[in-house]
Amino acid sequence: MDAFFRILELIGTLAFAVSGANVGVEKRMDIFGVAILGVTTAVGGGVLRDLVIGVTPPQAFQEPVWLITALVTSILVFFPFLRRLAAKSRARLDTLLLVTDAVGLGIFTVTGITTAMERAGCRSVLLLLFVGMLTGTGGGVLRDVLAGDMPYIFRKHIYASASLVGAGVFLLARLLAPEAAAVLLGVGAVVAMRCLAAHYAWNLPRAASVWQKD
Amino acid sequence: MDAFFRILELIGTLAFAVSGANVGVEKRMDIFGVAILGVTTAVGGGVLRDLVIGVTPPQAFQEPVWLITALVTSILVFFPFLRRLAAKSRARLDTLLLVTDAVGLGIFTVTGITTAMERAGCRSVLLLLFVGMLTGTGGGVLRDVLAGDMPYIFRKHIYASASLVGAGVFLLARLLAPEAAAVLLGVGAVVAMRCLAAHYAWNLPRAASVWQKD
Amino acid sequence: MDAFFRILELIGTLAFAVSGANVGVEKRMDIFGVAILGVTTAVGGGVLRDLVIGVTPPQAFQEPVWLITALVTSILVFFPFLRRLAAKSRARLDTLLLVTDAVGLGIFTVTGITTAMERAGCRSVLLLLFVGMLTGTGGGVLRDVLAGDMPYIFRKHIYASASLVGAGVFLLARLLAPEAAAVLLGVGAVVAMRCLAAHYAWNLPRAASVWQKD
Repeated sequence: MDAFFRILELIGTLAFAVSGANVGVEKRMDIFGVAILGVTTAVGGGVLRDLVIGVTPPQAFQEPVWLITALVTSILVFFPFLRRLAAKSRARLDTLLLVTDAVGLGIFTVTGITTAMERAGCRSVLLLLFVGMLTGTGGGVLRDVLAGDMPYIFRKHIYASASLVGAGVFLLARLLAPEAAAVLLGVGAVVAMRCLAAHYAWNLPRAASVWQKD
Repeated sequence: MDAFFRILELIGTLAFAVSGANVGVEKRMDIFGVAILGVTTAVGGGVLRDLVIGVTPPQAFQEPVWLITALVTSILVFFPFLRRLAAKSRARLDTLLLVTDAVGLGIFTVTGITTAMERAGCRSVLLLLFVGMLTGTGGGVLRDVLAGDMPYIFRKHIYASASLVGAGVFLLARLLAPEAAAVLLGVGAVVAMRCLAAHYAWNLPRAASVWQKD
Repeated sequence: MDAFFRILELIGTLAFAVSGANVGVEKRMDIFGVAILGVTTAVGGGVLRDLVIGVTPPQAFQEPVWLITALVTSILVFFPFLRRLAAKSRARLDTLLLVTDAVGLGIFTVTGITTAMERAGCRSVLLLLFVGMLTGTGGGVLRDVLAGDMPYIFRKHIYASASLVGAGVFLLARLLAPEAAAVLLGVGAVVAMRCLAAHYAWNLPRAASVWQKD
């Protein structure tokens, strides 16, 4: 079972590193900037979580396997041969990235919560929901702030809200089912929400202007 | 007396949440983005303070009453009926927001200092001044960085400097007067400075270009 | 020897404060904004490092000499008489700022590593490399994010990579030579890389578009 979680974490790390490195490539950064942006996206959420719950130095440096995975991934994204390959089947690639990014969002949300419980003894539901969402979305927020964009979570589609729902599903399921089932339900909820939102172009309601009629 | 401080904190939390949610509404964010921005503005300064003084998890999650207050406020701001009401007496509303925001800036500056003294045993005057200012202005800085704007404190009017003066007044007054009087003097100094600055359009001197005559 | 390190730290603090205050002046901020930006650039990297390694409150407030130095420097930069003087020999000034900034980047990288080892007992090479780079470049990243620019490290020339190389040189040299020599080698590597990169307009390769031929 533990091996299965590791696979989910690996998928998430790869997808997040690709999304960060891609932003760097689009902004024509040099190889170092692309690497920093990819690594930050992949491990940044966990680092922010560790600062908030007081785990120092952050776990990303105590178990560096994910950081190194993200680094290698970002460098591969930097070189054009992979992207040239990717350009040939762009539609399928976009779907793959959507699903793997959702897996990452889900598994990081869940591991954020379990880390806060195990490493820092957090019990407050509000804190756990926040920490799950921070672990899931924090890397992407750092990526966007560093790249000078408005954070993705404020711009499009159901994203942070999917993480929050996944966190809630996981916390509820833990009370009723074994941990492994709770993890699957939590991650599954995030993936389902993200994929349905993308497919049907769902969006949460936006603020209406007070000047226009509703 | 404690009840009086709670009322000041409530006013500040409401005003800060409104200011954050308003930015989200203006940028046409969805309801989730508006809520995140409102909550971040209201409790973000305290969270940054707690990271700096080593109080983890941050107090905002240990006493969640303010976080929940900010959340509810932000959601109310999201829906247009309140804003449509507000639009009818915009001038009076602007004055109300200016004064309540100043009360928030003042009380958060003061509670930032007392929290650093009580929870982390901080004694350095320089650190206390910084921590007061960080608690007062940090939420607004996070709001602006997340929303992609240059932070308000760099853009306009006497704001961070009012917080710094309030912090200094509070620290001085504590040496001479009972705590309650010191709080009132500190908050009063901030409110007075902000209102006078807004009324007379005071600004600190800006950098003159070396190319133009001064 | 210790006095020599202090001189390097002083040079770096002056150079970083000037670079931060300059951004504030260029953006026509008021004196308070210029001061905040100068101080943040000079001590921000160390504060971020201390948050990551769990030293709270950050060392910048425990030994406030650098913070106060940066504050005074920023205020001097704000007033035009110094800048009017500087405008008379701009080319020489640019060289001076390049070299002193490189000295700052080098010494902050090195002291970041030694602080993490001495104050927090960090031993992981990966963490030490990261913390060195964070201490060297973090102040500039904060400056740029606060000023609404894309961080310098993503925009131009060899900068973060010079810090990383300096960190590696210092860690290697420590194994073979006395501490003092290792510091000089680490700082020297950074200064050499920055000056050569600026002189020959070196840049790391940028991401090539997949649409154009390479």
